[in-house]
Formats: sequence, C-alpha cells, structure tokens
Amino acid sequence: MTDGTYRFASFPTFAGLPSASLEQAKELSPDVVIIGAPIDWGASYRGGARFGPKAIREADYLPADRTRPHLPSGIDPFEVLKVIDVGDVTVAQGYLELGLEAVADAVATIAAMGAVPIILGGDHSITFGNGTGLARHHGDGTFGLVHFDAHADTSASTKAPGALHSHGTPMRRLIESGAVPGHRFVQVGLRGYWPGPETVAWMAEQRMRTFLMSEIVERGLRPVVDDAVEAAGGVDSIGIFISVDVDVVDPGMAPGTGTPEPGGLTSRELLDTVRRLARELPVIGADIVEVSPPYDGPGQITAFLGNRIVLEILNGMAERVVAARS
Amino acid sequence: MTDGTYRFASFPTFAGLPSASLEQAKELSPDVVIIGAPIDWGASYRGGARFGPKAIREADYLPADRTRPHLPSGIDPFEVLKVIDVGDVTVAQGYLELGLEAVADAVATIAAMGAVPIILGGDHSITFGNGTGLARHHGDGTFGLVHFDAHADTSASTKAPGALHSHGTPMRRLIESGAVPGHRFVQVGLRGYWPGPETVAWMAEQRMRTFLMSEIVERGLRPVVDDAVEAAGGVDSIGIFISVDVDVVDPGMAPGTGTPEPGGLTSRELLDTVRRLARELPVIGADIVEVSPPYDGPGQITAFLGNRIVLEILNGMAERVVAARS
Amino acid sequence: MTDGTYRFASFPTFAGLPSASLEQAKELSPDVVIIGAPIDWGASYRGGARFGPKAIREADYLPADRTRPHLPSGIDPFEVLKVIDVGDVTVAQGYLELGLEAVADAVATIAAMGAVPIILGGDHSITFGNGTGLARHHGDGTFGLVHFDAHADTSASTKAPGALHSHGTPMRRLIESGAVPGHRFVQVGLRGYWPGPETVAWMAEQRMRTFLMSEIVERGLRPVVDDAVEAAGGVDSIGIFISVDVDVVDPGMAPGTGTPEPGGLTSRELLDTVRRLARELPVIGADIVEVSPPYDGPGQITAFLGNRIVLEILNGMAERVVAARS
Amino acid sequence: MTDGTYRFASFPTFAGLPSASLEQAKELSPDVVIIGAPIDWGASYRGGARFGPKAIREADYLPADRTRPHLPSGIDPFEVLKVIDVGDVTVAQGYLELGLEAVADAVATIAAMGAVPIILGGDHSITFGNGTGLARHHGDGTFGLVHFDAHADTSASTKAPGALHSHGTPMRRLIESGAVPGHRFVQVGLRGYWPGPETVAWMAEQRMRTFLMSEIVERGLRPVVDDAVEAAGGVDSIGIFISVDVDVVDPGMAPGTGTPEPGGLTSRELLDTVRRLARELPVIGADIVEVSPPYDGPGQITAFLGNRIVLEILNGMAERVVAARS
Amino acid sequence: MTDGTYRFASFPTFAGLPSASLEQAKELSPDVVIIGAPIDWGASYRGGARFGPKAIREADYLPADRTRPHLPSGIDPFEVLKVIDVGDVTVAQGYLELGLEAVADAVATIAAMGAVPIILGGDHSITFGNGTGLARHHGDGTFGLVHFDAHADTSASTKAPGALHSHGTPMRRLIESGAVPGHRFVQVGLRGYWPGPETVAWMAEQRMRTFLMSEIVERGLRPVVDDAVEAAGGVDSIGIFISVDVDVVDPGMAPGTGTPEPGGLTSRELLDTVRRLARELPVIGADIVEVSPPYDGPGQITAFLGNRIVLEILNGMAERVVAARS
Amino acid sequence: MTDGTYRFASFPTFAGLPSASLEQAKELSPDVVIIGAPIDWGASYRGGARFGPKAIREADYLPADRTRPHLPSGIDPFEVLKVIDVGDVTVAQGYLELGLEAVADAVATIAAMGAVPIILGGDHSITFGNGTGLARHHGDGTFGLVHFDAHADTSASTKAPGALHSHGTPMRRLIESGAVPGHRFVQVGLRGYWPGPETVAWMAEQRMRTFLMSEIVERGLRPVVDDAVEAAGGVDSIGIFISVDVDVVDPGMAPGTGTPEPGGLTSRELLDTVRRLARELPVIGADIVEVSPPYDGPGQITAFLGNRIVLEILNGMAERVVAARS
Repeated sequence: MTDGTYRFASFPTFAGLPSASLEQAKELSPDVVIIGAPIDWGASYRGGARFGPKAIREADYLPADRTRPHLPSGIDPFEVLKVIDVGDVTVAQGYLELGLEAVADAVATIAAMGAVPIILGGDHSITFGNGTGLARHHGDGTFGLVHFDAHADTSASTKAPGALHSHGTPMRRLIESGAVPGHRFVQVGLRGYWPGPETVAWMAEQRMRTFLMSEIVERGLRPVVDDAVEAAGGVDSIGIFISVDVDVVDPGMAPGTGTPEPGGLTSRELLDTVRRLARELPVIGADIVEVSPPYDGPGQITAFLGNRIVLEILNGMAERVVAARS
Repeated sequence: MTDGTYRFASFPTFAGLPSASLEQAKELSPDVVIIGAPIDWGASYRGGARFGPKAIREADYLPADRTRPHLPSGIDPFEVLKVIDVGDVTVAQGYLELGLEAVADAVATIAAMGAVPIILGGDHSITFGNGTGLARHHGDGTFGLVHFDAHADTSASTKAPGALHSHGTPMRRLIESGAVPGHRFVQVGLRGYWPGPETVAWMAEQRMRTFLMSEIVERGLRPVVDDAVEAAGGVDSIGIFISVDVDVVDPGMAPGTGTPEPGGLTSRELLDTVRRLARELPVIGADIVEVSPPYDGPGQITAFLGNRIVLEILNGMAERVVAARS
Repeated sequence: MTDGTYRFASFPTFAGLPSASLEQAKELSPDVVIIGAPIDWGASYRGGARFGPKAIREADYLPADRTRPHLPSGIDPFEVLKVIDVGDVTVAQGYLELGLEAVADAVATIAAMGAVPIILGGDHSITFGNGTGLARHHGDGTFGLVHFDAHADTSASTKAPGALHSHGTPMRRLIESGAVPGHRFVQVGLRGYWPGPETVAWMAEQRMRTFLMSEIVERGLRPVVDDAVEAAGGVDSIGIFISVDVDVVDPGMAPGTGTPEPGGLTSRELLDTVRRLARELPVIGADIVEVSPPYDGPGQITAFLGNRIVLEILNGMAERVVAARS
Repeated sequence: MTDGTYRFASFPTFAGLPSASLEQAKELSPDVVIIGAPIDWGASYRGGARFGPKAIREADYLPADRTRPHLPSGIDPFEVLKVIDVGDVTVAQGYLELGLEAVADAVATIAAMGAVPIILGGDHSITFGNGTGLARHHGDGTFGLVHFDAHADTSASTKAPGALHSHGTPMRRLIESGAVPGHRFVQVGLRGYWPGPETVAWMAEQRMRTFLMSEIVERGLRPVVDDAVEAAGGVDSIGIFISVDVDVVDPGMAPGTGTPEPGGLTSRELLDTVRRLARELPVIGADIVEVSPPYDGPGQITAFLGNRIVLEILNGMAERVVAARS
Repeated sequence: MTDGTYRFASFPTFAGLPSASLEQAKELSPDVVIIGAPIDWGASYRGGARFGPKAIREADYLPADRTRPHLPSGIDPFEVLKVIDVGDVTVAQGYLELGLEAVADAVATIAAMGAVPIILGGDHSITFGNGTGLARHHGDGTFGLVHFDAHADTSASTKAPGALHSHGTPMRRLIESGAVPGHRFVQVGLRGYWPGPETVAWMAEQRMRTFLMSEIVERGLRPVVDDAVEAAGGVDSIGIFISVDVDVVDPGMAPGTGTPEPGGLTSRELLDTVRRLARELPVIGADIVEVSPPYDGPGQITAFLGNRIVLEILNGMAERVVAARS
Repeated sequence: MTDGTYRFASFPTFAGLPSASLEQAKELSPDVVIIGAPIDWGASYRGGARFGPKAIREADYLPADRTRPHLPSGIDPFEVLKVIDVGDVTVAQGYLELGLEAVADAVATIAAMGAVPIILGGDHSITFGNGTGLARHHGDGTFGLVHFDAHADTSASTKAPGALHSHGTPMRRLIESGAVPGHRFVQVGLRGYWPGPETVAWMAEQRMRTFLMSEIVERGLRPVVDDAVEAAGGVDSIGIFISVDVDVVDPGMAPGTGTPEPGGLTSRELLDTVRRLARELPVIGADIVEVSPPYDGPGQITAFLGNRIVLEILNGMAERVVAARS
C-alpha cells in the first residue's frame, strides 16, 4: 500500500538507485558512483548550490524505479552499467579546504574501487577536489578534462590573503598542482568579460584549448565538438573527466545558477554534446556543478537540466559499452 | 564520510525516523505511525497539497537523527514514544474515492496494530478516510474529533452530480456515515463567509460544538480552549482525533495553503493549543492537512509550521505518558 | 455544462456581483457601487497596485455567486444591500491628474445616484480623487475621513517641480482644497520614521486626530477604537469615508504592498475594526489601496486580505441596516 | 468612463471574444468554440494546470477587443472566423472519469454545431475526452491526431488498480477505444527516458508515426514537418486534431508545466509549426494542455506562450480560409 | 578592510564606473555617459521598469572595478572609451510628460558635451525623450534609429483623451515631431498581433524599414542584419541611435518584461547583433528599456541580459575605435 | 537633474549615511559605525545571508537623506548621534575563521575609536567575531550580551573534525574564550527542539539567563523584558551588546531566514523591545543577523524588518542621550 517509488515523496537517491555508504560501496562492485558535494562557500557571488545535489536528485518526474530507457537509443544505462548513489560528502560549512580534501578523498576511493565517480555539486570549487582525487588514483597528467562553462575558472588568486580556493580557481590549481596539465584541458562555451588578458595569456602558455561561444556561433557546434573530441582524446590520455558548469547554458534555460552569463548554449546542445563525448571517449569522472535551487524559480528547471545532464553522460557511457560489445 | 543525516540531502522520513512498509510496521510495535496522503484533487480551488507530505517531512533544519528534545519541557517525544514513518499511501490521481478508501484502510491497519496514526495531507478530503478508518477499528461514535480550521467542511454536496467527496465535505460525510456523530465534533477557528445558514442550521441540529475566531477574540484563547477540552473529552469518549487544517492559522503566517481566509490564529497559538490538547486528552489519531508547497513562497514557512504541528502533538502525547508514569 | 460561477475561471466582478457601466448603474438603484482605480504611478517606491483591483476581485476561493453570509452574524451583505460592480475607471498611464479627476468624477456620479462608492486601488494617490468626488456631491467639510495607514500621507510636496500629487500627498491636498478639513480626519496605525517634525506640526495645527501604533500597543486596540469612533462621528458629520491603506497591517501579514513598514496591526485587528466602524457610523465612501500583486508572493495573501476588508466593511454596513430595521 | 476592455481587469473570455453558454452557442453559428477544461488530477507529478484555462485567457497584454491582426500575414483570424468562448467545462475535482466524459460531451456538442472546438487544458488526460468527443461526431478513425509533446502518453496503465486514466495514458486509450487508430497518429518532439521498450514496441505495432527531437536536431525542423504534414494528411482523413502539450517546448522557454523534459523545441519553432499545420491541413479540433501557472514564475511566460499557440492555430486556419477564397 | 568594490554590496554605478552629477559630467570629458530613466508609468500593461536602471547596474557578478575585458576580442571598452555614470534622471511619478522632457534635456546636455548617452530604462516611452534630446543637439533627421523590439511602438494614440504618450507611441511621436523621420527607422524583431493594418499602412507611408521575426526565421539572421546595417547607415546619416526593447528576445530568455511576446530572438543573437551594429556604424545614442525586475524571477536573468546588452554596445563602439586607430 | 538620493537607485549606505573606509572612519569621530559582514558559510542549513547587509541597507522606501525622525518620539537618531557606514568587511568565501577574525578586528577598531559598532550580518557565526572584537577593546567579561533568537547557539561542536565555528556555536565559543562569561548572557525568545539536555545543562552551569517563548506567552512580554533588563544590566557591566537573530520573530513575519522556527515574537514586539533595551541600558555593540534575501519572497519583508531593527536600536540609543541631556 505504501510505495517507496512514489514521485511526490522525497527522493534520497538518484533515480532510485541503490544506496550504500562510501565505505560499503566497494562490495557492490559499481561501475559508476554518484556522490553529492553540497558546498557553496566557494562561490564568489550567489550561493545556493549547497542544495544542488538534493535538487538534481529530486528534479525528476519519473518513478524512483532505477529504469531510464533512452528514447532515441533504446538503451537503459542502468541495465548496462551498475550505478549506485552514496549520498553526500560530509562537509563543514565555512571550511572550504576541509571540504575539497573530503571530495578528493571520496573521489580517489571511488576510483580505487574501479568505478567512475559522478559528483553532484556544489559550486565549481569542488572540481579541484574531483580532479585531485582522480589524479591520486590514475596519476597526474594521465587524463583530459573537458570543461563546459561560461567562465575559464583559472583565476590566479581569490584576492583574499590566506584563501587559496574559490569557484574561480579550480582549473588554475589543478594545473599548478600538476594533477591536470594545461594541455589536457578542453574548455567549451566561454564568453563574457572575464578573465583579463594576463590570465588569458597564462592559459595560452599552459596550452589550454579553449572554444569560445563566439567560435561556436561562427563555425557551428558540430565541427567545434569534432575538434574538442580530437583535442580531449589526446596522446596517451587514459580518458576524460567531464566537468559541466550549468552556466554554460544560456541563463534563459538555466536561470538557477550563481553567476549567470547571457549568450550560452541551448539545453539541447549541451545534452547532445555531453552524450556524444561520453560515447566517443572513455569517461573516468564527471561533475555537474553550480545548480542553485533558490535562484531557479518555482519550476526548478535548472535542476531538471542537471538531472538530465547526468543521465546523458551515463547514456553516452552505456552506448560506448554496448558498441564495444557488438 | 557520507552522512545520511545531512540536512541538505533529501529527507525520506519525518525527523529521520525508522521506516517500514505498512505491511511490516506491526513488527516494530510502534506507538505512533506517520503516513502521508498525497491527494489534492479534493481541493475546490488551489491544489498543490499532493506535495504536502514531502514538504512537511523536509521542512526541518535539524539533523535527521530521530532526536527532538522539546526545549520548554525537556522531553524528547522519540524517547517516550516509538514513532515510525511508513511513507505515503499509494494513490491514483483523479480517483478520489479510491484514495479515501486507501487512507481509511491504512488508518484502520495502523489502529489495529495498537498505534496512533498521524496523517500528513493532502487536502482535507482525506479526513473522511482518516475518520472512517479510525471508526472501523474503534467503533462508530466512540471518539471525539477536534477540528482546527477556518472552514466548517460540512458542505452537503459538491454540486457536481456523481461526486460525493471534496475537501469541503469530510465532516458532513463522517456524520452521515455515523463514524463521528455531530455531538462528538469540536471545531475551532472558523471564520469568514461560509457555509450559509442552511448548513449552519444543520450543524446546530447535529449538536456540533463550534468556536468561531470571533469568540476567541472576544473571550481570549485560553478560556475557549478550556471549553474545547471539556467538550472534546465528552462522556464515554475513548479519545480524540485531532484534525488540523493549516488554514486555521492566519494566511500571513501560513500562506502556503489552498483556501486562505484572513483573520486566523497565530502560529504560536495553534502550536500551544494542539500540544495542550494532546497532553490533556488521549489522542487516537491526527492529521495535518492543506499545506500546499507551490503557494508557500521560497521560505516554505507553512511547511515548517506543519512539521512543528506534528511535533507539538507528539510532544503533548509524550508529556501525557510521562505524567502518567510519575 | 459550462459554469460562469466557477472559481478557476476569471472573475470579472467582485463576488460575481451584477455589473453595469457607470452610465447605466443608476438604473439599478444600487446601495453600494464597487469600482476599480488601476493607478500605481502615484507610488513613490514600488508600483504594482495597478493590478490591485483585479487581484482584490479575484482573491476569493468562494463561488462567484453573489452570496457571502458572514459566519458570526449570519448576515449576508448582498441580501441586505444592493451592491454592483462597474469595473475600472479608464485611466491614462502616466497622467496622474487625469486619473484623479476621472476617479473624482466617477465617485461624484456614484454618490449622486444615492450609492456608496467603494474604490479598489490603486495607490493611495487615488484617495484625493475619492475625497474630492464625495465632497462635490455631499459638500466640503461634511464628512469624516477615517484613515488606516502606516503613513500620514500629508506630505507638503512631491519635491518635483510641477508635480502636485503622489501617494504621499492625498490627505494634505484634501485639507488644502477644503474637501475634508483637518479636524474631520482620524488616522489609525501610523508608525515609523515619516513624516518629519514640520509636517507633524502642520498636522497638529489642522487638528487631525492621529492614533499611532505605539498608542495602540500601550492602551490596547479596543479603547483606541472607542476614541476613534467618537472622534470620527464628530459634530454635524453626515458620515465617514473609510480609507484603508493595506500597509496599516504588518508586512508579515500583508507583504504585497509598495512601502512596507514593520510593526503594524494584525489582519484580524484590521478586519474587526473596519466592520465595527461601518456598523457604528454611517459610511458614505470607502477605498482599499496599495495592494500590489507582484510583491505579494505565490499565495497572494495581501489580495485575499483586501477582498475581506471590502466584505467586512460591507458587513458592518449591512449589520447597521439590520439593526436599524429592528 | 468604465471600460470593459481594459487589460488590468480580469479577462473572462479569450481575447474578449463573445461568450455564450454551451447550450446557447449554436445560435451564434460559430466556426470555432473555445472551451476550458480545468482538470489537473490526471497529472502524475506536479498539478496546477487546473488554472491553465484562466491563465491562457489572461496572458495577453492586448486589449480585450476581439481583434488580433497577425503581423506577418495581415490577417485577423477574428475577421475571418467566428470564434466564441463558452467558458469552462464544469468538473468535479477528484472524479477524473466524470470530467473526461464532460469534456467528450462538450466537444461532441461543439462538433455537432459545425464548429471546431479548441480546448484549453488542463492536464493531458483531457485529450482522451477531446478525441472521444470528436470521434462521436465525426466517426472513429476518420481524422488524424498531430501530437506535440515531450512524452508519448501511451502508457498501458496507471499502475493503480481501478484507475484507467491519467495524463500518461490518453493516446493509448484513444487507440484502444478505436476513436483514433494508431496509424492516424503523428507525434512530434518526443525525447527523454520514457516510455520503455515494451510500450515503444506497442506504438510501432500500432503504426504510430513518431518524430523524436533527436531526429529534428539531425535533419532540421522543416523537412521533419514536411513529413509530418504528409503523414497527418493521410488517406481518407477528414482533417486533423492538433494536441499541443506545452512541454514539447524546452523548459527554459516553458517552465510552467508539470513534467518538464529539457532539450525541446524553441517557442518560435512550435508557433511556426502549428500555424503551418493549420494552414496546410483542415483542423477539426485542437487542445493546448499542461500549462501550470503555479510553476510558471512571476512573468507567467508559459501562459503567454499558450495564448499565442491558440492564436497561431487560429491564424493558420484563417489563412487557409483566405487562401481557399482566392 | 572594507572594500567598495565588493559584489555583495550595492552597486551604485554601472561596473563601478566613475560617477558625477550631470552638471559636473562635462568636466570629465566623457565619451559615453550612462544615465537611468526610472519611469514605468508609460507602460500599458505591467509596470516595474522603474527599477530597471538599478537592476541593470546591479546584475553583474564581476567586481565593481571598471574593468570588463571582452573575451573574444580582448578589448576592454573602459580602456578605450571614457565612460561615466551620472545616476538617474529625477522624475515625478505619474507625470510622464515632465519625465520625458527631463530625459530629453539630459540627453541633449550629454550630447552637447560631445558624449554618447546610453539610457537605462524605464519603459519604452522614454525613447521619445531620448530621440528628442539627440535631435535637439544633432538636428532633426540627421541620424538613424535602429529599433529592436517585438512591437512597432507606432501607435497613433493612447485612446485616453489628453494623454499623448505611452510606451506604445514613441516611434510615432518622433516621426510626427520630425526628430527622426520614418525613412531613418530600421526595426528588427517585430512579431505578434499588433499593430493593426491602419498603423502598418502608415508605417509603410513613412518608409520605415521593418524586419519581422518571420523574415529572420526565413532568411537567417546574418543576411537580415546585413540589410539592416545598410539601411541604418543611410545617406547623410551622422550615425545611429540603438533602442533595444528587451522584449525583442524571446520571453523564455527575457521573462522580466512588461509585454512579453513569444517567438523572439535568442539572447545570443541579440548580443551579437548589437555589438556588430556598434562596430560597423557610428553610435550617437542608445537605450535599453523594458527590463522589469518584479516579473524577472529570483535569478533576475533579464537584468543580467540588460547589463550585457550595454556592454556589447560599448564593446562594439570600442572595437570601432580600435579599428580606426590601426 | 540627477539625484543621488533617489530610492529606485542602489543604496550604498544605510539611510544614505556618510561613508568612509574603516581606516578613515576615526577622523569623522563617529558615535556609531555600521558595517556589513557578508558571511553565510557558517549556516548549517540555508545560506543566503551573505546578501543580508546589502538587503538591509536597501530595504527602505524613504529617501537616502540621512533623516529618520521617529514618529512616536519625534527624535531623529541621526541628529542626536553621528552615525557612519563603512561598507562591508572583506571576506574570503569558504574561509570562515579568516572572516571571523576580520570581523573581530573591525569591531575592535571601531570600539577603539570610541564608537559603537552595529554589524549587519551575515549568519550568526559572525557574533563570535563581534563579541571577540568588543572584548579586545573593553576587556573580557565587562559587558552583557542580550541575545534575541529562536536558538541558543551554544552548540559544543560542529560535528565536523577540524571545524570549530558555525552559526550554531558563537555563544559557546564566546563563553569558552572568556570574552563573554555565561552569567553575562540574557537570551530571549528561544523555542523548539534544540539544543538537547546536555547542552541545556551546560548552559545552566554557565549561569546563562534564558527566557523561552513559552515563558513570554505565559507571563506576557513586558514583565519578561523587565527581568531581562535587570539581568542584562548586571553588576559592574559597562553596557550591553545586543545580538538579534531575525529568526526570533515568527517565520510568518520574517520568512527570509535560514533556520525558521514557528511560534516566535511578532515584529512589533521585537521592535519595541530592542528600542526599550537601548533606551534603558548603555549599548556598546549590536548585530542583526540571519536575514537571507533569497528566501524572503518578492516583498523582501524580512529585510525591511532588519532595517527597522537597526533604526529602533539607534532610536533607543538616541532617546537615552536626549534623556541624559535633560
């Protein structure tokens, strides 16, 4: 009579997937582990992304039945991949570095069990933790980072003495630490009025590959993604880490975010692109960040988009597995 | 590292209480069983209360740690009473009578295991199910119904041929079915411009006891509640069923509801009154209805109020147990 | 099969009352005429009150059936009084003086047909039109003005050369024009940090009677209203014009308004007071102003309050008629 | 002085069109009859569409003057077609099957008077009523159904025993009843993770023609609509019934809906497509469903879109008439 | 320790630019002067644009550091152009003509100091003031007006006797006054159901050049803008005045506006187009109007768009200067 | 023509007060210094209070003219006291301890210049900084802390290893550090289900004086405040630090806060009480915390309340000065 899969109820795991503590997760031999990082104190402007993991899990009108058959492909990623949800990293509010280390530790633990971590953010500062954790397991410089964002997130400093990290710095810190060298970066969707020439020059020195929105408008999305795939699947790369800042999408279609920059991708373009990437290149990690529910309006459409970004990545990964089988 | 009690995460049970299916609940020998009734298709105006059970469970900033010590009394109801949460009744949208029967069946099942059901609504139509279920177990006419509401909910008809129930009819139907005779009713907080004289006359014939807001303003709340306690604890009553329509509170303090009627109680007055009732009279059932999240605004304060109404009822019940022990 | 009284539908007249153009209204011999004044360009801060008349008419979950029996008294004002709704004054946006003259003309026309006008605002600038229209028919200085408000609205100037009116000036202009002399004013609920000493001194010179919130807190509402009734029903007064700025109520209970000032009356206190006034003194006109839907949140509770303020005034008037009959 | 066409006021009919009860409508010899179906208890997730008809009528900044000249074509559909608005079907909340029958009855009545019904929903369950009503008059299997939606709405069951209908089932039920055989269906815009392979296989067996969003992205909209027009105007078809679920549009542009699925059409694409369809094929009925005002945000842009979808269909129909004349 | 550029704080000037009173501005020898026109009483439907100037200034997550390097071009307009912000025109609410004259006077003053005024609206009525002020300085008929809008704003009358101006009339009034003759107008993005044939015929007589959205869809944006650039840079034109009504963008991406018309440009298309115009033609004035914060939702994305429209115009102007230098 | 005091514009200082950097403030010899602490990463549940200082400054419909005459007393605090606004403390997001030290340092600096600091929060963690800063200047244990709150904020730990501070710990940490010994604490308005018995016992040991809401309901506000005044003005106290968590007010009247607890004071009660305290006892510091704009709804009434709390404290201080003079 009472029905745990009912969609009016709370939704403690993504799509109703099996849950486990991170400690117990290994016993389930997962292919993919979903984990939340409810941190928004790295955000320089609006917060709210601490409720991102909850919102992304809940923004789904389908039953919590662990079944998500993709309409075009007919593939259900949960039939192809064993995916579990280990809940959220425990964080101390206001202690960003403790939180980033907790994320790194969780990610390394997941990678060590042979699974791909997908992190639900949280603001973009957490990607330093994610990348660090992946590098701990896979080795520095071994994988590419495909970064969808309106912003380069390569700020040299937070301008506050003693504060090393923020959501504007993760890509810089990953390069500086050696976890992800600059030539392993592919950035898609950048636009607007930041960063300044000094940082842009530094990025070029690091051989980061950057596809601005203006280039996408000029050349069309498909050829740009062709180039991005080629760049991301570089020499000796073991795979890619996909980091999606939801603000890569135009604020009109993703209003619930902290630092909206008009003029971005459509939702459709992003969804198709992440699925294609995950189909064409091996994914070793992913995160979806900067979904901020208090700024999302009553329809919570940005959270719905975040949920589907996760599913499209999973679908691409599943398509790759299915293709490899045949 | 991952922490199930974290408050940014989803909140599948009230206060993190143990969950069970209704079928398995008996084995836990609960004193109180919380169950949701996500029905809003009995509402005559605004809906949204289908998300009431979820919102009431989640509207709490405290950890999901099954601990809620009451500051004034020092009593933690979850130390005194074994309380579990069985999730939501499975309902078919648009089939109100099927839903009310499901509620009645669940309530009777809970009562039969010796527990007190507390139902999270849903619109007020569900109280027909609740009262019916209690009467199935305890017997018709054996208990009083203390009804907090801006509205009498004693409408003779829905004016739509073939439709017997709505959120305006439950008290009428309970009297008509014999489950709760009119003289067992105590209504508190009524006001406004409904129902009309015919229905008011019928209510008087049924010997329903009604305390209007105007009487509360005139005499003060305390003496009115003195009278209500006396009336509710009538001859041969085995106990009371407390039905709280959140619109008994002024819309200024409970905006997230379907049929707001200005000029009601304060939140404080309601919380103190339900706790007092539960302390002074044996409670055999309760419901809290008409919390409608889409009309509640970003602060979701009506859902927070709903959560605390449940806690104050539980606290009153616990105080009664503690007092009986000493 | 299609049902014009259905509450999900639009609501073109207050409570479904008969409508007529103002030109045709006289033929219906109304006792009361409701008319909207959708003006918000007199507001010094937030606008939005142009949608006040629409919102006040629609903020009602009861059917549009011209029936509103008052629960405490059993009186249905629409059985006692013939009330019609003539829609809204036609206004030119941005031409405040044209609008105020249109309001004055409409009010004088209604008064001339022997009816009491009740105006749905709109910002408080319209009260200059209302008072002027009443004085045109009844004569300057013949009636009292009972003014509920957080603000005195007696500003000497708008500080913009060439601009005579705003929502901060109507009471000043009515005194200056002679329509309502200062000693005919009773103000209730004032608080906060405006106006300054010069204006306060001018108000005292005019012998305006002012009851601050601080006095209400100190002495209690009832004795203050006793005094207000006595003051308003002054020598030779033919009756009163009740002007209710919804911001007299605390913003917690009336958030949808342009210039919220914390620390006001409760909704209940206002509703009871306007009904008492209308029962104890002859009402010759009324307005309810400064309901601003875009600032009211999804529950639209301030509009619901505005609707009930109108009904309580009508109820008081009806009680007075009934009492006079017996 | 008072002006019924004023846009701040309530808006009881679409564009200020003449109103009549359904019973009296025939006397007006309408070409098109607009009618609301305020039902949202067929929705499996978020409700709110009960206020859809009201919102769609009101979401218009133009005067209620029955004049809507289309800027590109110069055609005013209300000069070419006699369109009236009969208000809303009377429904009993929580009694879905009674409501669907009331819709079917109203639609059949309108068709019988030689008019095209355009229904303002309401959730998508109402399309079972619409299709059934059209088939009662025109005969089973005589017309095509062009269905714009993110979802196939061909669910075999509601999973609740005793409940036959929901907003996920109408297309299935219309095929099962024979009203609209599968080969008469053309579906446009489907995407996401529902339904599963069993249902997809059943749809193929029924020879439903389905154009996924992925195909539209791949091939471009124009050639897909070419195919859709050809498929819809099939052998012996007397015309088409256009059913527009507003969620076919991307949630970024239509956030106010119950089951948002990212990655849809733009508003522009939908508006152009429905106008083209109505110009190229004879329309015998239409509905626009799933506009849910409480989830639409303060701008109510989804309701504005719903209003324009109706106008574009009417414009296409008018263009067809004008073209036939010349 | 305290930091005036901090982004959580209020933002009194655009991007932290230097401020001055209009009187003192000349001494700073600005190239561009930003000024607000907080008028919304010219709006025929929803207001709220009085808070547009404040919202456009504040909708920016970057520091108030007078630095905005454009990512694609690397040009920082504030290094190339001396831009200052003189705050808002002082207006008298409800006295539209006084306000329009104040705008005209301010614009003429700015033009006379050799600077380009960029006005932050306000509703579109202010463009009459802007155009008038420019013509006072530069001479009637000397410049082109490129007008982005869903609406033609060429209404002959406000239909209210005595009221000459509204946000539907500015283009008509500018033609009538001779300030901007019809052949100097280029309108982009028009759509929907207004104005009617009489006005359309008048517009053609005036030789206004109009590019409807339907033409943009048909031919593509680039060739249409090619034509627009050619048309705007007409014979003997000294330059262009760019007037951007934010409702030219689809309401899905610009919900915070007064008269939303579905089916418009994307944000990206508008941003690219205004930058191109400002690069290819000399800009002598600009305004961005109809941003209405109360209808914009919690993300305030329309205000962010407004901010970036200003920046893209400035960037195009700066690119033109840089190109001229080389 | 342009007018810096205009209320539609941004509002960089409280009430338009003179601003200065903290470094330069001493030269102005202020009596009171207002400073913001935009920190919300100490909040355990909802954030958003980082925008509190901005919102509290801006939530005022009066002109930015440095004039706020109190209506009941006629006293303008800005005539009696020299008050300046030094903007916000510079903080590093996510580095709570750096921020608390920055607050402490700013507060000590202000105290050292002989001024009373009034801090605009920010979450309640900042009160550790405030109290620490005051104690640095005035000496440990020299002053009382009157704490208005729903919560005791005396948590022993954050439960996260390595994290010492949060918004649940400031009172504990101030006692532990010796800055404010327990017997110097007076807490007003506590309620709900937190903290547990262990912490309550610890509080009693520390001789903290606590007035629960239940005691206020039982005895009435006035006698409780009599006791609080007596307790706060204890032996050898040099004065009081008033710390107001806005959640002491009922969420119905203060919805925009992070951890709402139903059943609190009315706005009126709080405003009157803080003014009385500041009149009867010497104030050496104050803060108003936990105003969270994203949860406050479109009316932003909690921010308005925050603004008035500051003004009432200032008014009480001014009344004390005036009384001392006479």
